[in-house]
Amino acid sequence: MEQITVIKIGGNVIDNEEVLDGFLARFAAIEGKKILVHGGGKLASRLQRELGQEVQMIDGRRVTDRQTLDVVTMVYAGLVNKQIVAKLQAAGCNAIGLSGTDGNIIRAHRRVAKPIDYGFVGDIDEVDATMLRSLLEAGLTPVFSAIMHDGAGTLLNCNADSVTQAVALGAARLAPTDLVFCFEKKGVLRDAEDESSVIERITPESYATLKAEGIVSGGMIPKIENALRAVEEGVRTVRIKHADDLLCEAGTTICNA
Amino acid sequence: MEQITVIKIGGNVIDNEEVLDGFLARFAAIEGKKILVHGGGKLASRLQRELGQEVQMIDGRRVTDRQTLDVVTMVYAGLVNKQIVAKLQAAGCNAIGLSGTDGNIIRAHRRVAKPIDYGFVGDIDEVDATMLRSLLEAGLTPVFSAIMHDGAGTLLNCNADSVTQAVALGAARLAPTDLVFCFEKKGVLRDAEDESSVIERITPESYATLKAEGIVSGGMIPKIENALRAVEEGVRTVRIKHADDLLCEAGTTICNA
Repeated sequence: MEQITVIKIGGNVIDNEEVLDGFLARFAAIEGKKILVHGGGKLASRLQRELGQEVQMIDGRRVTDRQTLDVVTMVYAGLVNKQIVAKLQAAGCNAIGLSGTDGNIIRAHRRVAKPIDYGFVGDIDEVDATMLRSLLEAGLTPVFSAIMHDGAGTLLNCNADSVTQAVALGAARLAPTDLVFCFEKKGVLRDAEDESSVIERITPESYATLKAEGIVSGGMIPKIENALRAVEEGVRTVRIKHADDLLCEAGTTICNA
Repeated sequence: MEQITVIKIGGNVIDNEEVLDGFLARFAAIEGKKILVHGGGKLASRLQRELGQEVQMIDGRRVTDRQTLDVVTMVYAGLVNKQIVAKLQAAGCNAIGLSGTDGNIIRAHRRVAKPIDYGFVGDIDEVDATMLRSLLEAGLTPVFSAIMHDGAGTLLNCNADSVTQAVALGAARLAPTDLVFCFEKKGVLRDAEDESSVIERITPESYATLKAEGIVSGGMIPKIENALRAVEEGVRTVRIKHADDLLCEAGTTICNA
């Protein structure tokens, strides 16, 4: 395979049908092999509230008891996943919706209940790159929800960014792989108030300076550090860009040098 | 391929976790290529009621407005499908959960709104036997929900028995195919009150007599007539049997002669 593009979309794209449709048209137009990973957290929270369940988040992660697991499985692996796949099919992209348990393609394990018991929340163990290759070679475009399994019959709610990163590392074993995180801003900004202040390129060296100077802070720190880890482990580039800019050279590129 | 077994389970198996687990252990033990199709209607009705939606059935078919479509997509393609796949994976069966839109494997069209407007309800057009072969040859066991699509971006709620029949006809183009409908009784009974009165074999000739004598009636008539159509169109045998009897020679076999 020549190359693979792995793209993550979150709530800012999924929750607005017009934005989602625009994004999927652009995604369908990307040439070459590609993989989509999606979230769906806001829809899950809405359904939880409609069912009278309490939505409990700790550090941005959903505490997932049995009822919550059923809701996220329904919303992520069912509603959001199949709607995206149907729309991609309509756009001429031969998508296949998958959770980690399908074809045992991604295995996870339940997170240890200390210091916080997140319930049925998992961390990724490994992606079956051989299965990924079979699907891509069959002309299919995998669309992943973040519902994984432990191999012993239990589904697990995983972080979609972590799933994306694991899928990209699996893809990188097959072909040069670029990972794109679709973001609500144009990229990593020098000045949070100024959308024109996008930092074009971040390398391990420049990141050290940016962090020391306090230019990147808060929620961007784990995002960039995970991206740097991905490029260190074999992903060619990680881009953080706005979903509208999917087809153009824009956003922040994180790479080794 | 030597042969393919296509099996349908409905609410009587799905709605009881113990029964489902027993069934899935037996399903995993079936040798050779196999495909599972599942319903999930009772769970969908329960979720509809929890969400304050009205459950509207006409002639046993669910009237499917936009809200109902979201519910059945969540329950069938999400919760039930992924739970079954995770349990099969735990039993050593490399299952992959699919709706018709995944890989565009089954295409349907929305049913004409006259005389009854069922909403987002579809009838099957065709099954992509080539895609089915790719999955089976990759060692995967497809597990289908009855959520299909029209190819233009709209999901459709289809009848799981009809999906099963279409999948079996697609499979029959690849290899000799046996279809099994798991039923709440031991098979087609001569005497509805007597579980030991199973009719072992029904052919087009014997069916004419059974129907004329009033031995089969009511809901069994469309079941048997659909089965006879399936064998006429290329399925080797159709069996109607109890889920507990999956691995033994039991139940009613419908065949050409």
